[in-house]
Amino acid sequence: MRYKITVEYNGRDFCGWQRQKNGRSVQEELETVLSGLFGVKTAVQGSGRTDAGVHAIGQAAHFDAETSIPVDKIPFAVNTMLPQDVKVKACEQVADDFHAQFGAKRKTYRYRLYFAPHLSPLRADLAEQITSNLDIDAMKRAAKHIEGEHDFKAFSASGGKVKTTVRTVYSVVVNRQDDELYIDVTGNGFLYNMVRIIAGTLVYVGESRIAADDIPDILASRDRKRAGKTLPACGLYLLEVKYV
Amino acid sequence: MRYKITVEYNGRDFCGWQRQKNGRSVQEELETVLSGLFGVKTAVQGSGRTDAGVHAIGQAAHFDAETSIPVDKIPFAVNTMLPQDVKVKACEQVADDFHAQFGAKRKTYRYRLYFAPHLSPLRADLAEQITSNLDIDAMKRAAKHIEGEHDFKAFSASGGKVKTTVRTVYSVVVNRQDDELYIDVTGNGFLYNMVRIIAGTLVYVGESRIAADDIPDILASRDRKRAGKTLPACGLYLLEVKYV
Repeated sequence: MRYKITVEYNGRDFCGWQRQKNGRSVQEELETVLSGLFGVKTAVQGSGRTDAGVHAIGQAAHFDAETSIPVDKIPFAVNTMLPQDVKVKACEQVADDFHAQFGAKRKTYRYRLYFAPHLSPLRADLAEQITSNLDIDAMKRAAKHIEGEHDFKAFSASGGKVKTTVRTVYSVVVNRQDDELYIDVTGNGFLYNMVRIIAGTLVYVGESRIAADDIPDILASRDRKRAGKTLPACGLYLLEVKYV
Repeated sequence: MRYKITVEYNGRDFCGWQRQKNGRSVQEELETVLSGLFGVKTAVQGSGRTDAGVHAIGQAAHFDAETSIPVDKIPFAVNTMLPQDVKVKACEQVADDFHAQFGAKRKTYRYRLYFAPHLSPLRADLAEQITSNLDIDAMKRAAKHIEGEHDFKAFSASGGKVKTTVRTVYSVVVNRQDDELYIDVTGNGFLYNMVRIIAGTLVYVGESRIAADDIPDILASRDRKRAGKTLPACGLYLLEVKYV
């Protein structure tokens, strides 16, 4: 039987989603607990990796198991054994050909910023500080230029092995709430560091270091150096993975 | 010269505000850094203690110093030396007879709850989980009964040495935002654990374990056993201290 789980984690003390020789990964924590619960080695396949320090509110993953535990009780059983910084929020039975990575149709990431002259202890490792005023209207105009099907090579870190750098971004929403600013990006897939570079580029637009209407040129250039900086991992959240 | 500072801290890794022999306190971190900055032992007087695990967004404190550092630069100088979990947000010069504890006119605390069937890794140590539905209208009715000048003995932990258990609560505001619930309590002073017991009592009202209109009776009883439970420290925030 195949199961899909929705996972929340605080990325602060993880080397990332993916199992690594030297480092504590979310995947390994889940596999250890599920293997213990079912009494047999159980592999967990995520919708994709997240980097060290990146958080998830709704990471998706699948695993196979034969168990008499009712599906709605699995999160409770697993969570008693998981550490405080990773928990399973939901579990459902899925078709045998469901695949958390290859079946993912769209993902939404959030980049979380806060405005303050001094670092905020209560948001340390959870959001990125902005000390300047940002022109949020300009950021919203730039966000519109990012939406659509584009070659996002200028918005990706080198080193990723991908067949194509063309992706579709369904929406980029810039939303200020009190002293925080959220940049929510939904797409059919993302290149390495793509959301952190989109967020960094929008911040440069907000700081008038890049003009909103230069975004099409930057995309066309396919030149990483023309986009903004890669913002730190701590502000990035995987919000949701959709399969339909 | 006397200075007033506004301090934010994450209470997770502190034994509380007050300096203690065995434990890492906010007061000690501040005194160590300020003493180093000014080259002379500098005592820091807070508006009051907070317990281990309790957070502050706007704790107030004062200290005396003779320094040529401009007042608006003091937070920057101090923050480079403070650890990540405590920072000075603001500093201003005050009259020599200003006293952070004795001059405090009103304080506002927030208790932060979140509704979820499973523990939230991203809110661990930052908020308290609620797994039941709460009758928020009943909680708001109960909150009104708490406002005013009352003997709050029923809402205090034993062990506090105080002359009187009469306090004035100016407002108790219950406010739901998405999957979170905030209980904001403003008063002229608080007994030991008073806000955590008020919050716990309101949760009992939300769960229909205490009737909203029983609050006046519970206050009159002066009996701690009749109020609700003391909620954990991790959900409590000192938001603001006012001196006028």
